[in-house]
Amino acid sequence: MNTESAIERKRLYSLSPPALARLSICYQVALRAGEDGLESLSSAYLAGLLNVDETLVRKDMAVVGIVGRPRVGFPTGEILVRLKEILGLTQITDAILIGCGSLGSALLRYPGFAKYGLRIAAAFDSDHSIVGQHIGEYDVLPMEKCRSIIETFRIHVAILAVPANTAQEVTDWVISRGVIAIWNFAPVQLAVPQNVVIRNENLAVGLAQLIHQLKRSTGEQGSAL
Amino acid sequence: MNTESAIERKRLYSLSPPALARLSICYQVALRAGEDGLESLSSAYLAGLLNVDETLVRKDMAVVGIVGRPRVGFPTGEILVRLKEILGLTQITDAILIGCGSLGSALLRYPGFAKYGLRIAAAFDSDHSIVGQHIGEYDVLPMEKCRSIIETFRIHVAILAVPANTAQEVTDWVISRGVIAIWNFAPVQLAVPQNVVIRNENLAVGLAQLIHQLKRSTGEQGSAL
Repeated sequence: MNTESAIERKRLYSLSPPALARLSICYQVALRAGEDGLESLSSAYLAGLLNVDETLVRKDMAVVGIVGRPRVGFPTGEILVRLKEILGLTQITDAILIGCGSLGSALLRYPGFAKYGLRIAAAFDSDHSIVGQHIGEYDVLPMEKCRSIIETFRIHVAILAVPANTAQEVTDWVISRGVIAIWNFAPVQLAVPQNVVIRNENLAVGLAQLIHQLKRSTGEQGSAL
Repeated sequence: MNTESAIERKRLYSLSPPALARLSICYQVALRAGEDGLESLSSAYLAGLLNVDETLVRKDMAVVGIVGRPRVGFPTGEILVRLKEILGLTQITDAILIGCGSLGSALLRYPGFAKYGLRIAAAFDSDHSIVGQHIGEYDVLPMEKCRSIIETFRIHVAILAVPANTAQEVTDWVISRGVIAIWNFAPVQLAVPQNVVIRNENLAVGLAQLIHQLKRSTGEQGSAL
């Protein structure tokens, strides 16, 4: 390994989850800006979209080695190239998807994952009325085939779109077969060993926060009466 | 307004977003526990699922007025009843959904929203090949009808599942028509006035964090070589 990639690696590992979230959003903004023909993005513009201070945007950019120009901003092309490397989007990660109900089907049909470095290699369901269905580019496979696919293709990532009451069981099983990262869409908190990476997408939590804030904002208006 | 509901209101307004997220997960856990016939949940069990300290669970429960029993825990039924009130799930909030592509369709078919206090009143799309389609219980309406639905039914919440490059325009427009809360599934950060509540569900950010952690965990193993 040469020195440059060692530095790169260190940079990659030192990013905190919030910094990573900001950079990921900057990448999305730059993708859109590129499509719209914007050649540069100012730190003020990015700070506004991220709801953070400009200083933090400049710091983030400095950490990943993107150099801005005074009174112009950060070149869109450079943001795209650098963040694609830093976010690890130059390599594709294979995953399996388990659970092909309405949410799982939507994920299978979602064309945007490749842009963010993920490819769904195969999709599974335990419901035999769903197995064999053709969803997007996938034929839904029975759970019985899951083990051989994980082992043959050395799959490390599982996307779970199963019902809450089976999610833990499925999780334990895929981990026992070699999965080390879980992207969980089931509305439940899963217990996983410390060496397993887990990310929960819990729509119910988002919804509760939205409705709570809404009630607070309308309630506060009401309480002035 | 009587004193009790004034206290209730104060409690509701004083919840921080993280506390609200924890209580929302407790509610989900209690729903599942209820289905499984578990009569009580210990603070240790809840703390484990939430990945927080037991003390914090007890504090959260005390704030919302749920009383635990020594060596038994918090009664599942009481958690359900109290959190349903506290989270504002006893009233149903009406929303419209804009954008009926793959993600929007999945949201329309998702049967779980009512459980969390949301009802989708109508669904819209600007694509005339999608308008008129029957998705779940909905007929997709043309955007031209959106204004009258928002105004007639006094809709305050819009769920956006539109492409990134039209999301800001749609946002500005629904806000100008009276929407004050946006649940955004478009992969873009939206600018909204300060009085508008917004919640972003950004799958790309979640995915970037998952893949980054995965690379770090496998990379760290590799770097020991």
